[in-house]
Amino acid sequence: MLAAIAALSGALAALAPASGQSEGAAPPLFGVKIPPGYRDWKLISVAHEAGDLNDLRAVLGNDIAIEAYREGTLPFPDGAIIARLAWRYLPSEENNAVFGREQSFVAGAPTNVQFMVKDSKKFASTGGWGFAQFNDGKPVDDTMLGGCFACHAPVEARDFVFTRYAP
Amino acid sequence: MLAAIAALSGALAALAPASGQSEGAAPPLFGVKIPPGYRDWKLISVAHEAGDLNDLRAVLGNDIAIEAYREGTLPFPDGAIIARLAWRYLPSEENNAVFGREQSFVAGAPTNVQFMVKDSKKFASTGGWGFAQFNDGKPVDDTMLGGCFACHAPVEARDFVFTRYAP
Repeated sequence: MLAAIAALSGALAALAPASGQSEGAAPPLFGVKIPPGYRDWKLISVAHEAGDLNDLRAVLGNDIAIEAYREGTLPFPDGAIIARLAWRYLPSEENNAVFGREQSFVAGAPTNVQFMVKDSKKFASTGGWGFAQFNDGKPVDDTMLGGCFACHAPVEARDFVFTRYAP
Repeated sequence: MLAAIAALSGALAALAPASGQSEGAAPPLFGVKIPPGYRDWKLISVAHEAGDLNDLRAVLGNDIAIEAYREGTLPFPDGAIIARLAWRYLPSEENNAVFGREQSFVAGAPTNVQFMVKDSKKFASTGGWGFAQFNDGKPVDDTMLGGCFACHAPVEARDFVFTRYAP
C-alpha cells in the first residue's frame, strides 16, 4: 500500500497545475486553505485511531456536507467540505477516579486538522476532492498530500469518504 | 462509590417536588426533555469510555454553553445545555485494511443521549443542573438519574462539568 501511495503521489504531482514558480518551489497540489469557522460546524461522527496516530477525532461538515450526509446524496455536491479534527488520546485520571476503574480516555492537545473540499472541476483528477492538512495552523508540504486520494480510493462507492454519519 | 450513589439517589428522590400523581407514578426528579435541535449543536469535545460502557462519545453544547466554555465563564449561566451523545465502539475493518493494521475504531449504533441543563433556581439542590438520559428517545426512570449529581460532585470547581473544551 505504501508503495502504491508513493507511486500515486508522484503521479499526482505530475498532474498538478503549472505554478509558474521557479524550480524548487513546491507546486500547489490542491491549494486548500483553512475554511473560516470550521470549528463551529456540525458533527458527522467521532473515531479513535490507535497505533502511531494515537488520537481521538471528530469529523465535522459544513452545511452542504451535512445536508448531503443526512439525505444520502452521492456524490457530495460542489462546496461540501469535511473537516477532521484530532487530539492526543489521553487517559483521564479524573474520570477514572469517579468510575472506579481505568476506562476513560479524553481529548488532549490537538494534533492536526485535515480537510476534504469538493470541487468536481478543480479537483477532477482526484475524485473531485482537494485535500489539506494543517499542523498548528500551518499547511503541510504537498508531498504529504499526494497519497491522500490513493488511500481514499477503496471507498469510491461512498464518493471517497470513509466517515459515515453517526445518528 | 456505588453505595454513595445509591444513598444520594434516595436522598434526591426525597427532594423531588411533589408531583400530585397517584402512588406508583415516578416523580419527575428533573423533568428534562430532549432539547430540540441538539444534534446540530457545536462540538465541545470527544471521548472514549472502555469497559462496560465501551463507547465513543461526543459532547455538544448549545450556544450559551459553547460561549461559556470559550470565554471560561463559571458557573455556566442559566440556559446552558450540554449534550453527551454516545455510540458503540466498533473496530473498522474497512479503515484497518487501508492503514494495514488494526488501529481504527469508529462510532457504531447509538447507545444513549444524556443532557445537563443549567437552571440555578429550578435545580438549586443539584448544583443548578438538571440531568436526563434517553435510550432510543425514551427517558430513563428517575431512579437512574439520582446518582448523576453525586458522580459530578468531584468537579465542583468546574461547575460539576467533567468535559473540557477541545481546541
